[in-house]
Amino acid sequence: MTTFTLCTLSSSSSSHLPCCISNSTTEEVHLGSPLLQRQFIFNTNWRKGRRGRGVSCGISCSAEAKTVVIGLAADSGCGKSTFMRRLTSVFGGAAEPPRGGNPESNTLLSDTTTVICLDDYHLLDREGRKEKGVTALDPRANNFDLMYEQVKALKAGVAVEKPIYNHVTGLLDPPELILPPKILFIEGLHPIFDSRVRDLLDFSIYLDISDEVKFAWKTKRDMAERGHSLHSIKASIEARKLDFDAYVDPQKQYADVVIEVLPTQLIPDDNERKVLRVRLVMKEGVKYFNPVYLFDEGSTLSWIPCGRKLSCSYPGIKFFYGPDTYVAHEVSVLEMDGQFDRLDELMYVESHLNNLSTKYYGEATEQMLKHGDFPGSNNGTGLFQTIIGLKIRELYECIVAEKSVTPLEAARVF
Amino acid sequence: MTTFTLCTLSSSSSSHLPCCISNSTTEEVHLGSPLLQRQFIFNTNWRKGRRGRGVSCGISCSAEAKTVVIGLAADSGCGKSTFMRRLTSVFGGAAEPPRGGNPESNTLLSDTTTVICLDDYHLLDREGRKEKGVTALDPRANNFDLMYEQVKALKAGVAVEKPIYNHVTGLLDPPELILPPKILFIEGLHPIFDSRVRDLLDFSIYLDISDEVKFAWKTKRDMAERGHSLHSIKASIEARKLDFDAYVDPQKQYADVVIEVLPTQLIPDDNERKVLRVRLVMKEGVKYFNPVYLFDEGSTLSWIPCGRKLSCSYPGIKFFYGPDTYVAHEVSVLEMDGQFDRLDELMYVESHLNNLSTKYYGEATEQMLKHGDFPGSNNGTGLFQTIIGLKIRELYECIVAEKSVTPLEAARVF
Repeated sequence: MTTFTLCTLSSSSSSHLPCCISNSTTEEVHLGSPLLQRQFIFNTNWRKGRRGRGVSCGISCSAEAKTVVIGLAADSGCGKSTFMRRLTSVFGGAAEPPRGGNPESNTLLSDTTTVICLDDYHLLDREGRKEKGVTALDPRANNFDLMYEQVKALKAGVAVEKPIYNHVTGLLDPPELILPPKILFIEGLHPIFDSRVRDLLDFSIYLDISDEVKFAWKTKRDMAERGHSLHSIKASIEARKLDFDAYVDPQKQYADVVIEVLPTQLIPDDNERKVLRVRLVMKEGVKYFNPVYLFDEGSTLSWIPCGRKLSCSYPGIKFFYGPDTYVAHEVSVLEMDGQFDRLDELMYVESHLNNLSTKYYGEATEQMLKHGDFPGSNNGTGLFQTIIGLKIRELYECIVAEKSVTPLEAARVF
Repeated sequence: MTTFTLCTLSSSSSSHLPCCISNSTTEEVHLGSPLLQRQFIFNTNWRKGRRGRGVSCGISCSAEAKTVVIGLAADSGCGKSTFMRRLTSVFGGAAEPPRGGNPESNTLLSDTTTVICLDDYHLLDREGRKEKGVTALDPRANNFDLMYEQVKALKAGVAVEKPIYNHVTGLLDPPELILPPKILFIEGLHPIFDSRVRDLLDFSIYLDISDEVKFAWKTKRDMAERGHSLHSIKASIEARKLDFDAYVDPQKQYADVVIEVLPTQLIPDDNERKVLRVRLVMKEGVKYFNPVYLFDEGSTLSWIPCGRKLSCSYPGIKFFYGPDTYVAHEVSVLEMDGQFDRLDELMYVESHLNNLSTKYYGEATEQMLKHGDFPGSNNGTGLFQTIIGLKIRELYECIVAEKSVTPLEAARVF
């Protein structure tokens, strides 16, 4: 496996002599004065014994600048990319595909975050899966060894050449270089499936769309945009269901947070699925993650904010909060049924939520408004995705702070 | 009607000459030096033109020292006396029957409060009611004219000679003197029935015991303590029901606060009626009365405090709070279903209730603990009675403060 590491070359004095380094292949780097510091990516083979040449040159590699790794598991077509855009937005700067690379790249980069799609670790392309009669949900169609090796490398601050699964052609395209970011999101069908990968995750999320809502979403998309028939959509869901239940769904037991998207309970016999009931299931005892709560931590509450201070249109909004158990884990659950009409509702709700990990009053509302055009901005999916973004930022900052308390010296080679 | 007024005689100088006053009857009062001030009760006829004799004597009567009047309506045997003991306790000092008077007096006196029982305004005694075929619930059995005159007099700071209904003999005993207190509670079947009396009330409370609970209470008391049969208890309740519904129950539409006592909803098919669901229905827009709320004013909440911070035994405790309408009035409702196990639960609950009108943190809990042996101390009846006591204290203080802003000069006769 070819991996890369990000290194910083520096001239340790203001000497005007050039600083020059060569690695095991043919690369040679000159750190010309008066440039005192510059970053380069090296094939990791370089690290085996090579040294910088010249006077007063230093090299430090980011092997110890640990990357925080977050896993997001969900079925396809369930709003993972919106979720990712919300999460990365909390860290500032838009997440965009790598510039100048394969236009079919599934990767999203921002200043501090990199999102990689685990479809890129498909072992079999579309044709191969058809031949072997396995779905993309089947572990046999996925390369967990490579996934593990590369996530491990990135976590250790080492760049990797990750394959690209081309969703248009259904083929595996040539790899792209992924540098270790501050925060790495791995999203897809199986981020929490393989125990080795799971152990690398600093935090994991499972997006659990109920069958009723999933069906409504797929129907809307596939009938309107792709011209599929209702019958074929049903058949496609049925065909995936067995493998989904066997290989994707069980991951939720390991997730630190589960977002459940369910039909509303505010409209009797609702079939439209426009109004949603969304539950944020937060595992207790996760390091650097303090569950959000409503009014009083640890007790059970239901709250209809609509009333004297706030008027809501039908069917209104109902929150629920309370302790519970989830697959034998002690959890706190925050639930929102219904949808927001207006800005002030969101602000009003934010003022009653605690442990939101915002940096200032109103930040969650501000985040939601920034992406008011994203799907789910008026309901619990948008709110809880935003909250998770804020929680992950705090988690990241805690991990960084922990490192600064027990500093690991950067490897100095020269 | 004979009424009395409370006057203060004072010697306006340190003269050693006696101060002497006579009234229209035969009373003559000497304010001997060096006593500079003394209080006396005068037959109000005195006020018509009589003057103090002697040198440098003054007299000021408390006609303008307005009494705050509170009405409590409820059926008999529904815990009115416990309620009254809780209310008066908030003002400090125990409420006791008048000393040296008729031992069958229904009146309770404390330093600042006087509780009079409206049974004393029965127009017909037990025999008379029997003859005429009317119950005590029937307005015809009650003297509303006298009730109005005397409450009006007391409110104006004028003492009255109030009849006594002897509950043992069923006869009307000779009257007792009632001085105008700081706070007058009038409790009984009809404090809010007569519109003239109603208009005199600064605050009114209706204690609404549901039929199921009333039946359970009466059965327990009458079977255990009085040896009545279940059949006779049922018959007695039925006999009263028509008049109760016609003359007592309709008063609740005028009450500022209604306390509803209902069967629990925490125990399916409960027949024991030991666990109660109690609702505090608080009218909006009542001067000097700000309804209590849970967590967030004006929205709708249910709260189960039992959880991580608090463990409760079966069936636990459930609170509800929210806006509602009650007989066409806008109200706020606070509900408690279940009962407290221990002290810390109460403190925990108090910390989440707002607008309690306590003077210091924990005062409501302290009040409840002081009377832990009173019936209902572990459930919503005790809690809400205590809260109403605190609210009435605040109301009283606001009325007094209002008077001090726009002072009414005490009548100076000399």
